[in-house]
Amino acid sequence: MTADESIEQGTQLTPKFDDNGLIAAIAQDSKTGQVLMFAYMSREALDQTIKTGRATYYSRSRKKLWTKGEQSGHFQKVDQILIDCDQDCILLKVTVTAGQCHVGYQSCFYRKLKPETKSLDFIAKKVFDPAKVYDK
Amino acid sequence: MTADESIEQGTQLTPKFDDNGLIAAIAQDSKTGQVLMFAYMSREALDQTIKTGRATYYSRSRKKLWTKGEQSGHFQKVDQILIDCDQDCILLKVTVTAGQCHVGYQSCFYRKLKPETKSLDFIAKKVFDPAKVYDK
Repeated sequence: MTADESIEQGTQLTPKFDDNGLIAAIAQDSKTGQVLMFAYMSREALDQTIKTGRATYYSRSRKKLWTKGEQSGHFQKVDQILIDCDQDCILLKVTVTAGQCHVGYQSCFYRKLKPETKSLDFIAKKVFDPAKVYDK
Repeated sequence: MTADESIEQGTQLTPKFDDNGLIAAIAQDSKTGQVLMFAYMSREALDQTIKTGRATYYSRSRKKLWTKGEQSGHFQKVDQILIDCDQDCILLKVTVTAGQCHVGYQSCFYRKLKPETKSLDFIAKKVFDPAKVYDK
């Protein structure tokens, strides 16, 4: 196998971290299929996710590891970890028991684009009150 | 509203492109909920996607716009465009009529991690032969 073939057709995990040492990661609800959020993982975040079974990301704004739910209690239990063909994106299938977006929605993707006006329409209702969850 | 509130709670599309002028984009099958692929869009790619209704990305390796399916014929018809809370990720709900991964699978996420050994298990079968599709 060539290096490319090995990455795409092999059974060895060789995640491709970018120049900042990060890899893209998508969290999808195992039961509903809803895409919940998108973030990045460092190698340490990925290792910790594998080890603990709880989704851990790297916060680019806070420049540190971030276990989803550490503040809100809204953790992600990792059921399955998938990786894409060129191994530069992780897909986590997760079980959740509460809303996953810090704005208060189940998913971070709560707005859709109206192509004709390029404005956004809300397609979801909040499932929790962030003021109560984050101001504890 | 503060700038942050406007991004998160507003109805104006203000996609946050990174230092390379790109924004993350996830394609999800509208019918099955399967996450099909992950790529990046430039502003031009997003504009073209909105205008044409066909998913167009920016290829970082080829450094150019890339309408998914332009080589394979395996296009993505865009049903809905969602954006996340901080507007740095696009989620496309798409209708497809053929496998979306250039390796031959329906989805690019055809391998799962076995946490105990950190090796990969194939969880899907190929749905088309890339040699026939790309060597036309």
